[in-house]
Amino acid sequence: MSAAGIDIGGANLKGARDDGLVVTRPFPLWREHDGLPQAVEELLAALQPFDRLAVTMTGELCDCYANKEEGVLHILASVEEAAETTPNVWLIDGGLSSIEMARAEPLRAAAANWHALATWAAGLEGNGDSLLVDVGSTTTDIIRLVAAAPNCGGLTDTERLRSGELVYTGVRRTPVCSILEEADLGGKASPLAAEHFATTLDIWLLLGELSEDPACLST
Amino acid sequence: MSAAGIDIGGANLKGARDDGLVVTRPFPLWREHDGLPQAVEELLAALQPFDRLAVTMTGELCDCYANKEEGVLHILASVEEAAETTPNVWLIDGGLSSIEMARAEPLRAAAANWHALATWAAGLEGNGDSLLVDVGSTTTDIIRLVAAAPNCGGLTDTERLRSGELVYTGVRRTPVCSILEEADLGGKASPLAAEHFATTLDIWLLLGELSEDPACLST
Repeated sequence: MSAAGIDIGGANLKGARDDGLVVTRPFPLWREHDGLPQAVEELLAALQPFDRLAVTMTGELCDCYANKEEGVLHILASVEEAAETTPNVWLIDGGLSSIEMARAEPLRAAAANWHALATWAAGLEGNGDSLLVDVGSTTTDIIRLVAAAPNCGGLTDTERLRSGELVYTGVRRTPVCSILEEADLGGKASPLAAEHFATTLDIWLLLGELSEDPACLST
Repeated sequence: MSAAGIDIGGANLKGARDDGLVVTRPFPLWREHDGLPQAVEELLAALQPFDRLAVTMTGELCDCYANKEEGVLHILASVEEAAETTPNVWLIDGGLSSIEMARAEPLRAAAANWHALATWAAGLEGNGDSLLVDVGSTTTDIIRLVAAAPNCGGLTDTERLRSGELVYTGVRRTPVCSILEEADLGGKASPLAAEHFATTLDIWLLLGELSEDPACLST
């Protein structure tokens, strides 16, 4: 029996198999949500062969969906359509559960991927009392692990923003105008244009910590 | 002899004729810049008949252009292609000028529409010493008018941001995450998601100052 896990994000699809195979691909869910079943099918093909499948997600918060429930249900339906095996779904307060439970209460499956990671990391030897820091493209998770389990100040995005365990800053997608009010230009303070012209990825480019990708034209 | 003036913005095309006719239409230049000649042609058709044509712009800063020079030249070429008469162009430091002068030094035509407005407003009777405040969809201009002329602390966007005469906040397009770090939710401070999910337009909707437009689905 081998198992695969996939994470359906708003900008990226990720998959891993328990022998260490990892697959990721960019997928702009908020622009192309009709193409999700096809994209998941390609992700799963790259993860073959596997017997069991688990799903986490954050893509339900994309603004192509009227609300998170609609997003969770569409993502679950897309994965079911693409997969040959019935997937299990990670619930924020229930761990790995049946897809029927997720469909019955979609919000329990929303933004649960950090919790799956924290539960797994907390169970690793030597991680008994630790701090888990996961810096992603869009957000950063900071989670206390105590006695081999996540010790969280909140479960939903709103609660976690308040507790400081979800920091809405990442290495790629964060608009510069959301983290800086003004910049020092030649010794003079200059307010920024409140436009989506530059993101944190551009900061790393300018600092020389990343090299330019001529094919990357989106902001 | 009748005259028309048009302003090519990044999100809207606007036109006016000297008898008071005004035409505006939304046009997402940053997404569809290949369609600009056609869109300008339709704008000019709605302004017919007129003998002379003047152009201002701010759309050159859209990130579909590699830089502002490229943007100005593309916008000028699009207007020339669409118009039956050779347009004049407002230059930030030269007023109404020939299109050849604008092409020779494109940056002088960049973001000059506020200056055309300020020059016109300053010449109106009773506006000798005044403050001109123009709140747009994306930005707000605050310009001193002294002795029937604009008295500016800067001419370029960068200079004007520094002087406070260009405030990058408008009634429609400003991302909420660029003007607010945290919000009071039920008595508790909650940091915001650094996403383009909500703009100032949503603020006016929530305050009940604007009514909802079911057809408006973009953020």
